[in-house]
Amino acid sequence: MARVYNFSAGPSMLPYSVLEKAKNELPEYSLTGQSVMEMSHRSKEYLGIIESCERKFRALLGIDNNYSVLFLQGGAWTQFAMIPMNLMTVNGKADFILSGNWAEKAYTEASRFGTASIVASSKQDNYKYIPKIDTSYLDINADYMHICLNNTIYGTAFSDVPESVVPLVADASSMILSRRLDISKFGIVYAGAQKNMGIAGLVVVVIRKDLLERSADDLPMMFSYKVQNESSSMFNTPPTYSIYIMSLMLDWIMDEVGGLENMSERNNEKAYILYDYLDESKLFKGTVAKDSRSLMNICFITGNENLDKQFCFEAEKSGMPNLAGHRLVGGIRASIYNAMPVEGVRKLRDFMKAFEKEHA
Amino acid sequence: MARVYNFSAGPSMLPYSVLEKAKNELPEYSLTGQSVMEMSHRSKEYLGIIESCERKFRALLGIDNNYSVLFLQGGAWTQFAMIPMNLMTVNGKADFILSGNWAEKAYTEASRFGTASIVASSKQDNYKYIPKIDTSYLDINADYMHICLNNTIYGTAFSDVPESVVPLVADASSMILSRRLDISKFGIVYAGAQKNMGIAGLVVVVIRKDLLERSADDLPMMFSYKVQNESSSMFNTPPTYSIYIMSLMLDWIMDEVGGLENMSERNNEKAYILYDYLDESKLFKGTVAKDSRSLMNICFITGNENLDKQFCFEAEKSGMPNLAGHRLVGGIRASIYNAMPVEGVRKLRDFMKAFEKEHA
Repeated sequence: MARVYNFSAGPSMLPYSVLEKAKNELPEYSLTGQSVMEMSHRSKEYLGIIESCERKFRALLGIDNNYSVLFLQGGAWTQFAMIPMNLMTVNGKADFILSGNWAEKAYTEASRFGTASIVASSKQDNYKYIPKIDTSYLDINADYMHICLNNTIYGTAFSDVPESVVPLVADASSMILSRRLDISKFGIVYAGAQKNMGIAGLVVVVIRKDLLERSADDLPMMFSYKVQNESSSMFNTPPTYSIYIMSLMLDWIMDEVGGLENMSERNNEKAYILYDYLDESKLFKGTVAKDSRSLMNICFITGNENLDKQFCFEAEKSGMPNLAGHRLVGGIRASIYNAMPVEGVRKLRDFMKAFEKEHA
Repeated sequence: MARVYNFSAGPSMLPYSVLEKAKNELPEYSLTGQSVMEMSHRSKEYLGIIESCERKFRALLGIDNNYSVLFLQGGAWTQFAMIPMNLMTVNGKADFILSGNWAEKAYTEASRFGTASIVASSKQDNYKYIPKIDTSYLDINADYMHICLNNTIYGTAFSDVPESVVPLVADASSMILSRRLDISKFGIVYAGAQKNMGIAGLVVVVIRKDLLERSADDLPMMFSYKVQNESSSMFNTPPTYSIYIMSLMLDWIMDEVGGLENMSERNNEKAYILYDYLDESKLFKGTVAKDSRSLMNICFITGNENLDKQFCFEAEKSGMPNLAGHRLVGGIRASIYNAMPVEGVRKLRDFMKAFEKEHA
């Protein structure tokens, strides 16, 4: 079968050349007599892979030595609990901006460990925009402030990083490495790998080193940033193959795309192929405020639920699966992460045009 | 380079045919137009994979519907904390048999959540044998009793499952699917996949369904067995590719090895190639009591640390890497999990013989 353009919200597409490289490195990696899947995580061969992965990740995002990079398991969902377990330990309180479902989950999980306060929210408007922040609500004694940079389900994103006097903690799962991010503005940036930089089973946590001191000594070992940092993500067996695929993705961004600036331009181009069409379409309507549009998840509707479903069904038959919106919101969602080619987005846009003509 | 016989304690070898199958299913799985790595975990294609994996796992071990099978992340180390978080919730206490380092870690982590009692231990003898259990020490009001069935670092294993009136919880990471295991004797059996049934990043938890009721409602969602069970391991994105490789491993055990009985015989044969030789060698000595010998991790020494190191160094040059014992005990350790071929073990035995002749 021809390769599909997979519009899944994650796990999602990988670049074809990454898949080819992974294939070529089976059953043997380099001249090691074994595959990456089989390597002891403490072998010199594997240490070369994980160290190179970290080095490239730091180079692409410009992460300096004030930050540690941790390769962990359990996805962003585990971070929703680990962050308060480790960081809500000074004054026992933190501020949350609710801009979508995952931001809300981060808030709910933190509530189990201390006082979690909502300082801005667009929930009352079904998260159709990024809420404005009234700085007078921010607590200068909060242990941190949490935001979700891109809201996968609703298709919104922060265009600027909000100012914060307390450490800013950001879920970057659905935007990491899609554009520049000034890490120095954050205390923690965390991201699951399976959308923009690899496959499921790996979550990367970038943490400012002074925050590592907040981890209490009686935390379960696996859940302590301090413990994970002291053992350089080797406290237990890390998800070795997922880290390897991430390393291949970083090579692709660096060598084939030409770096993060080019990646960002390409992602802009892709998103505006769809947004420009949505702005002129008489059938399809974007569902979020223009100033809050995500470049990664483009959400739209026809206004007729059955027609939305028919669209997704026909698109799948044409080699564009996973366009159905999240079950919380319905409608149509095109997730166009780093690995989605421009051609895939053009094909979708042309398919939308034809569908519009047919159903005008 | 020729394929090596990798004696790593984990991650370790995969069957060559599993690697070939994984290679052949890149960049496209079946006729889906995408690879498994890229699949949405909620797509029908991927649901077919995870459901088939569970079905085969249940069939091989004879797991009935009184048990749930959960595919989780974070390795056995995360289970060391999740077990007491979920299970130590009736009387707040549990019993532990210390038979090695990981058993001890399970005990230490549980101590953070309640009263953890040591009811048998061979620590005073450096874990050279499986401790005898004096049933008079067992607490009939303990919420569970924890054991580690195979002790990877020391090379010992329980030959029989101990009797227990309270739910028995077993770490089976380094013996799962290597031989039969009567699941009905256990409350929980858990195992990381990267030794006997796949690659890193996946831990499988088999839990008796009545125990799911013990999970408190205020647990962080990711750490609740009840939550994970209710969403059939799809509470968050599971480690999709690791589950796929496990599914290929199960096919291999069923179709190529011929089932768990054959797997068990093969593992017995492999271990006794080495143990029989160790019993007659004048240079190499097994380090554990004969009645406690592991079939998975065979530990031995020459009695001379430098000679041990030289042996491991020369074996690696001969295509048998990762024979150094764990840093806690030193010496030599041959980990011969399911995927290690009989030929690999014969080659090691012959290499030992030649080394002995040279250093007699």
